[in-house]
Amino acid sequence: MTDDPPSVPTDTASVGLVSPRDASFPGPFPLELGGELPALTLRYETYGVLDAERSNAVLVPHALSGDHHVAGRHSPSDPKPGWWEAFVGPGKMIDTNRHFVIGVNTLGGCRGSTGPLSVDPRTGAPYGGTFPELTFGDIVRAQRLLVESLGIRRLRAVVGGSKGGMQSLLWAADHPEAVDRVVALASALSQPPHALALNALARFAVSADPRWRGGHYLSGEGPDAGLALARMIGHASYLSPAAFARKFGRLTVPGAGPADPVHWQVESYLRHQGDAFVRRFDAVSLMVISRAVDRFDLSARAAAGVLARPGSPAVLAVGFSTDGLYPPSEARAIAAAAGSRGACLEIETDAGHDAFLLPNPRLTEQVRGFLA
Amino acid sequence: MTDDPPSVPTDTASVGLVSPRDASFPGPFPLELGGELPALTLRYETYGVLDAERSNAVLVPHALSGDHHVAGRHSPSDPKPGWWEAFVGPGKMIDTNRHFVIGVNTLGGCRGSTGPLSVDPRTGAPYGGTFPELTFGDIVRAQRLLVESLGIRRLRAVVGGSKGGMQSLLWAADHPEAVDRVVALASALSQPPHALALNALARFAVSADPRWRGGHYLSGEGPDAGLALARMIGHASYLSPAAFARKFGRLTVPGAGPADPVHWQVESYLRHQGDAFVRRFDAVSLMVISRAVDRFDLSARAAAGVLARPGSPAVLAVGFSTDGLYPPSEARAIAAAAGSRGACLEIETDAGHDAFLLPNPRLTEQVRGFLA
Repeated sequence: MTDDPPSVPTDTASVGLVSPRDASFPGPFPLELGGELPALTLRYETYGVLDAERSNAVLVPHALSGDHHVAGRHSPSDPKPGWWEAFVGPGKMIDTNRHFVIGVNTLGGCRGSTGPLSVDPRTGAPYGGTFPELTFGDIVRAQRLLVESLGIRRLRAVVGGSKGGMQSLLWAADHPEAVDRVVALASALSQPPHALALNALARFAVSADPRWRGGHYLSGEGPDAGLALARMIGHASYLSPAAFARKFGRLTVPGAGPADPVHWQVESYLRHQGDAFVRRFDAVSLMVISRAVDRFDLSARAAAGVLARPGSPAVLAVGFSTDGLYPPSEARAIAAAAGSRGACLEIETDAGHDAFLLPNPRLTEQVRGFLA
Repeated sequence: MTDDPPSVPTDTASVGLVSPRDASFPGPFPLELGGELPALTLRYETYGVLDAERSNAVLVPHALSGDHHVAGRHSPSDPKPGWWEAFVGPGKMIDTNRHFVIGVNTLGGCRGSTGPLSVDPRTGAPYGGTFPELTFGDIVRAQRLLVESLGIRRLRAVVGGSKGGMQSLLWAADHPEAVDRVVALASALSQPPHALALNALARFAVSADPRWRGGHYLSGEGPDAGLALARMIGHASYLSPAAFARKFGRLTVPGAGPADPVHWQVESYLRHQGDAFVRRFDAVSLMVISRAVDRFDLSARAAAGVLARPGSPAVLAVGFSTDGLYPPSEARAIAAAAGSRGACLEIETDAGHDAFLLPNPRLTEQVRGFLA
């Protein structure tokens, strides 16, 4: 584990140049479904300054395909900022002038934290298809290790969208003494059955690729076509029908013939998303995380009042009107489960599930207020 | 072409035992996007009795995966009736005591009509991957040949759901002198962009299967895994989220381990649908029809009044409240495009797009009235 100082914003619009760091923890790290990891490393970034009381830290867990790189750029020529640049920075929704923000690549991920691409110290070879099954409980427990290693006993907040929101809720349920407030955007108390069906399709796309080989493939020889298709299946559920119509309509690719495999502009967009995903994601990681998402189910514990206990965190649930994956009814259910500690914000948008990634003044104002 | 008498209902609840027949037409059959078919055969079934004036015929075009077998059974031990048994039969929505009903496998299909599995008389080998691109205009023109060959100059109605509804609308637009009334259930004036995206995913699933080989595969060596996945992608859009929750919830397959490829009951359902589809469908056929669906676009002609011309058919558009593929707004647009000749029926249901296949007393009553 490193203890470099957090990176400092270099301009007022962005946290500026940032660098990831690794925190390593001696094992074994026990897993909820059995077994253990002999060692654990988490890759993370931080933005803003931790105050003297270590009381202003905000953890931002990521969704399925995100990572620790939440905001800023890795070099002056970096073409793309972090995935939540619109919301995290000086004066933004999660204001790095006030808060010390922590982004962390998930356990089981493939962007630096211990996952299928990591070397299993017991064998000296990458885990690959031998990587164990995870739960969101495991993922959140690993995040807590990181938070404590930074000297933080209690987070100001955990703020997550989609699968990141599920993790926020698990912080409230499993670690209520360690967090003041949680925000779950475009999320749910459990993976709904139709979202489970879409994840199943994505997994089937990967496993139907002959290069899948049960996850036992060499680097560069993985199931690229299946992984791309899995991502395309996901993307088709991230946009609303109205957003598909607004962004692509029925426009065709210039010059494409009627039987060409990429004839429509929406087809070209999906292919691009699939291809880009293959360049930055690992198929075993997708499978492991996808199954962890599907088994996320806080509904029985929520019905038993776990989110409404005295002293547990305040909960802000945000629903987006056209989110077909985790519709506003899920946000209302989250807020209701937190009783007097819960609040629900519903945002009108035509953007669908991906709305949680898009700038929105009302959202910014409400979440800023909730975190203050 | 045969001229066997139509089959006769054997009981009051069903049209009973039925047999398909083939109608063959000398070519060439010209195609809208260019080229031609040297010969044309359509497989069809009929139920009920054609009246002396030949004025009581109702054509039922099918959706993506249906066929000519709309109602009844092929043998006393046939485990499954036709795909619209709930709606077609004595006393039913399309009442075979009153109407002479025609089911026909689509041009380009794989259930007996000329399609990729047919032998190209020019080569003596199946068309396979050389089968030409089709439009719904071609498909409807072929249907008209069949109707005329049965001695019918004017249909009482064309009644179709989903892609069958699009064909109903093309009958009204392209052949208004040949049909009195059209019913389009769970349909649209054009393939909406997000439905187009889902079809693109299905096609990508097929073409990513190494056994696809551009459609040039031998019988029994086709892209089964890709075709199954394509069907699963479709099915995930045919049910509403509420229907997924009601039918499967978060139930698991008894005895399934956490990493098993079929862990959830909804996963098992989707796999079953995929596998069943592979047994009765051809991948080239799916690709050709899927592209024909995607290029279906009557919207500009509808805006120019093609469905509202004097003397054109009355149009009943039926929308289902939770249909995510062709929502009720599409049905309203269809009815509006038909002006004073149009009517819209909106049905409350949690079933999603598949609602057009499920018994519904209000639907039955309204369509019966419209056809009378």
